[in-house]
Amino acid sequence: MRHEIEAQWIGGMEFHAAVSGHTVVMDAPERAGGDDRGPIPKPLMLAALAGCTGMDVAALLRKAGKPADTFSLKVTGEISARPPIVYEAVHVEYDFTGSEADREAALEAVTRSQEQYCGVSHMLKRILPVTWSVVYNGRTIFTNATVSAAAPADPVSRAA
Amino acid sequence: MRHEIEAQWIGGMEFHAAVSGHTVVMDAPERAGGDDRGPIPKPLMLAALAGCTGMDVAALLRKAGKPADTFSLKVTGEISARPPIVYEAVHVEYDFTGSEADREAALEAVTRSQEQYCGVSHMLKRILPVTWSVVYNGRTIFTNATVSAAAPADPVSRAA
Repeated sequence: MRHEIEAQWIGGMEFHAAVSGHTVVMDAPERAGGDDRGPIPKPLMLAALAGCTGMDVAALLRKAGKPADTFSLKVTGEISARPPIVYEAVHVEYDFTGSEADREAALEAVTRSQEQYCGVSHMLKRILPVTWSVVYNGRTIFTNATVSAAAPADPVSRAA
Repeated sequence: MRHEIEAQWIGGMEFHAAVSGHTVVMDAPERAGGDDRGPIPKPLMLAALAGCTGMDVAALLRKAGKPADTFSLKVTGEISARPPIVYEAVHVEYDFTGSEADREAALEAVTRSQEQYCGVSHMLKRILPVTWSVVYNGRTIFTNATVSAAAPADPVSRAA
């Protein structure tokens, strides 16, 4: 089995990629010779990570009958100082609002995604540290980040 | 320095990611509980690779004063048989049309991107084989793929 995408050069730095039947526009900012008509390519890897683990969590919470009221993710990639520009560490912050009774279900869904299901996270963990934290109703209930990563200054581990 | 993206759960399996000022919609197909309103997440890694190396090549050919008439890329990722679903090999096909006199410039730009500049390729090469081929005016002028990868049945190496 394989995934296949095609990307067409439009001109300048603009490319249109066909990805599972949808068009994704990529471009460079003006300072890099582009026209800023779409996202730059590299952080699409971070978006892939957010979508991969986010869909795991949404599906697990739906299956458990405990969907969040709101759910968002912030993914931060530390980039290397020198070219080729690569990510050197990635942090995912999961941010939920919902019933206090469903807090553990959210945390468990995140853990199952990160430890078992999410293929993008699995790939990235083989080349760099991937850490994550969980915020529930405004309170950090889990983090495995160290201070050096993109994390709160005073991390707590399963402090819930 | 860091890259940061944010992704908002819309409902079902749909997420909207904000990536360098642009919105990227991600969704699952209907058979996976989604509404197919955007690409699935994982192949966005392949799109990131296409955009990264494609922009290198477009910029190098522009700088050389030898832009292609047309330029497209096809990126294929072989996926694992079991979860977590990861890519096990990736192949990039670069397809150019243009003046025969500019053929070597296109090949050189691809080589420089793959061997020096492209950070996405650099990251992926640390976890899986990344191979590539170059087609110029309909003829394969380079491939480093083996038969087992997503490649022509009878690969030629720098046969130009």
